[in-house]
Amino acid sequence: MKIAVDAMGGDHAPQAVVEGAALAVRELDCTVILVGDREVIEPLLAKHSHPEGKIIIKHASEVVRMDESPRKALNHKHDASIRRIFELVQSGEADAAMSAGNSGAAMLAGLLVLGTLPGVDRPCIGSVLPTANGKVVLLDAGANVDSKVHNLVQFAFMGHALARYALGIDRPKVGLLSIGEEAGKGNEVVRTTYKILKKSDLNFHGNVEGGDIFNDVVDVIVCDGFVGNVALKTGEGVVQVLATRLKAEIKASLLGRFGYLFMRPALKRFKQRFDYSETGGALLLGLDGIGVIAHGRSNPVAIKNAIRISFDYARTKVAMRVREEVESSAELRQSFGEKVHQVIDQIKEKKMDMDLKDSTSSDKGD
Amino acid sequence: MKIAVDAMGGDHAPQAVVEGAALAVRELDCTVILVGDREVIEPLLAKHSHPEGKIIIKHASEVVRMDESPRKALNHKHDASIRRIFELVQSGEADAAMSAGNSGAAMLAGLLVLGTLPGVDRPCIGSVLPTANGKVVLLDAGANVDSKVHNLVQFAFMGHALARYALGIDRPKVGLLSIGEEAGKGNEVVRTTYKILKKSDLNFHGNVEGGDIFNDVVDVIVCDGFVGNVALKTGEGVVQVLATRLKAEIKASLLGRFGYLFMRPALKRFKQRFDYSETGGALLLGLDGIGVIAHGRSNPVAIKNAIRISFDYARTKVAMRVREEVESSAELRQSFGEKVHQVIDQIKEKKMDMDLKDSTSSDKGD
Repeated sequence: MKIAVDAMGGDHAPQAVVEGAALAVRELDCTVILVGDREVIEPLLAKHSHPEGKIIIKHASEVVRMDESPRKALNHKHDASIRRIFELVQSGEADAAMSAGNSGAAMLAGLLVLGTLPGVDRPCIGSVLPTANGKVVLLDAGANVDSKVHNLVQFAFMGHALARYALGIDRPKVGLLSIGEEAGKGNEVVRTTYKILKKSDLNFHGNVEGGDIFNDVVDVIVCDGFVGNVALKTGEGVVQVLATRLKAEIKASLLGRFGYLFMRPALKRFKQRFDYSETGGALLLGLDGIGVIAHGRSNPVAIKNAIRISFDYARTKVAMRVREEVESSAELRQSFGEKVHQVIDQIKEKKMDMDLKDSTSSDKGD
Repeated sequence: MKIAVDAMGGDHAPQAVVEGAALAVRELDCTVILVGDREVIEPLLAKHSHPEGKIIIKHASEVVRMDESPRKALNHKHDASIRRIFELVQSGEADAAMSAGNSGAAMLAGLLVLGTLPGVDRPCIGSVLPTANGKVVLLDAGANVDSKVHNLVQFAFMGHALARYALGIDRPKVGLLSIGEEAGKGNEVVRTTYKILKKSDLNFHGNVEGGDIFNDVVDVIVCDGFVGNVALKTGEGVVQVLATRLKAEIKASLLGRFGYLFMRPALKRFKQRFDYSETGGALLLGLDGIGVIAHGRSNPVAIKNAIRISFDYARTKVAMRVREEVESSAELRQSFGEKVHQVIDQIKEKKMDMDLKDSTSSDKGD
C-alpha cells in the first residue's frame, strides 16, 4: 500500500509533514511517497528515524500556497506537489493521495486529475467526526458553496456509502441538516431535498439540527459546504474556548489547581477524543480515486493520523465501494444525473401534490 | 417599566414562565403582564411569592403550539397569547414583549402587530452571546432563511446599532460569517455582501469563520438565519456533549472523582458563563418596538433572565436607538431600501471593477 503525501502542504509544512510521515511508516504497513522539493525534504527526513525504503521522495518543483486561488494556481503551476500526488494515484503508483495544504486546491487538483465517479456532479468533503458515543459522517464539510438540490441528494448517497464502509454500519441513518425537525423547516434547497430523500430508498431520518451533529441521532449528516464548514469550525472553536476557559478557571483557585492534578488523566482522555489532530483527515468523496485532506494546522501527529486514514480508505477501497454502491442502487442512479432535475421540476410545477402540503411556505426556524 | 410575557410559550410553559416571572419581579424594578389562560395561570402564580401588584394577568384564550406553522396559526388564532403581548406594546400598555414559544410565530406576530422600522425589509434575531473574554452580537440567529444581499447589509447595520447600545461599544467591529478570511471566500450572497460592507462606513473587519464566533475577533457577526441557527445550535450541542463526556471521564476513575470535589466551584463558574439559561433571550431586531424571544427549553431561571434582558432593552430604548441610527446614517439610508438593489445591480453588471478582481470565482473554503 503506497500513500502519496503532499510534503509542502499545511501551515507547518514541510517539517510537520516529514515528521508525520516518519511516524506513520513506523506504525503502518505502508510506504509513503513524499512529494515536494527534494532538497528541502531530504535533510528534514534525515532527522527522523524510519524503516529502510518505506519513505520515497518524489521531486515536485512548485507549491500552491494556503492563500492562493486554487483555480489560478493550478492553471499555472503544473509541477505543484498538490497536483502530483493525485497523478501518482491516477497512474497507479500510489493507492491514495493526502494533503494538509490548500483544501480548495486539493479538491480541484483531484477533480482535474482523477475526475469524478460516474453520476457525481460535484465531489464533496466527507468528514468522520467523533460524537458523544460514536462517530458520524458529515458532508459536505466545505468543498461546495451554493449547493443545489441534486448536489445534496448525491451527498446523501455518497455519505450513505461512506458510513457503510468507513463506520461499518449496514443501513446508516441519514439526516438533513436544517433549522428545525419538521419537514417544512429550512431554506428552499433543504426543503426540496427533504422531499426527494423522503422518497428515496435511503434510511432517511428527516431533518436534524446543529445540536444533533455530535449527539448520535443519525450516522450521516448532509449539508451544503458553506453550512458544514461553518458548523465544524464553530464546534472546533467552542472546544478551544471551553478548554481555555476551563484552564483559566482551574488556575484561578488553589483548590482548582489541586483538583486538576487528580483529574489530569481524565481530562487527557477527554482531549484525545475531541482533538482534531487525533481524528486525522477528511475524504474527498466522489473522486474516481482516494484523496484525503488534513487540517491546515496539522502537527506531526495529525499528519500521521491523516496518513493512517488514507491507508484505511485505500485498504477498504472506499472509492471503489462508493462506485459500486452508486452503480448498484437504482434509486441512486435515478437520483443522480438528469433524472433528479426532472423530479425537481415536477415538484416545482405541481407545487407538491404530495403529503407535505405546507412545505413551500417560508416557515421560520425555532 | 412593564414587560408583557407570553405565559403559554415554551416547552415548560406555563409553569416555568409563571415561576420565572415571580423570580423576575422580585429582582427587577418592573411589572410583568402575564398573558395567557387566566384559569391556568392564577393557581400557578399563587404558588410563588412576589411583591404585591407587580404581576398582572391578561387573559388570552388561544395558544400557538411549538410545532405549528406560524402563518397558519396566526391567521386563525386572533386571541393567541403570542400575538397579544405585541398588541400590549403597540398600544403602549407594555414597554417590551417576551416569549419562549414558537420563535417563528413570535417574529411573525411582532411583524404583523408592530411592523418594521423604516428601511428594514426583514427583521432578524439578534443574539448576544458569551465569548472567551466578553460578548458578541450574532445576527440573524434564525429568523430568515435564503437572505438576500440587502438583508445581510441591513443586519450589519442593525447589529452595529445593537452592539453600540447593548454592549456599550462605540465603534463595534463588524464581521461577515464565511468559510475563509479572504474576500473571495464564501457563497455568492456573502461575496457580494462583503463588497458592499467594505464600501460602507461601518468598522468592517471582513470575513470571519465559525471558529471566530466565540473568540472576540469582532463585536458583531452577520449571517443568514439558516447559517446562524445551525452555528448556534452546533455550539450549544458541543457544550452539552463536552459536559456529559467530561462528567463521564471524571466518574470513570476514583482520582477523577476526588479531583472533581476540589474543582467543583471552578466548573460551576464555568458552567454559569456558558449556560444558555444565564444568557437569557434574543432581540427581535428591526421591529418597531421591543420583542424578545427566549429558548424553547427555558427553565424558570432562563425566563427570569429573558425578562431581565427585555427590561434592559426597554430601559435603553434599544428599538428607538436602532431607529435613530438608521435615520442618522446616510450610508445606512443608502444601503437600506431601494438603493442597495441599485448597488447590487451595478456590481453584477460591472463584474466589479473594484480591487477584488477574483471575487466572482467560485473559490473553495479551507
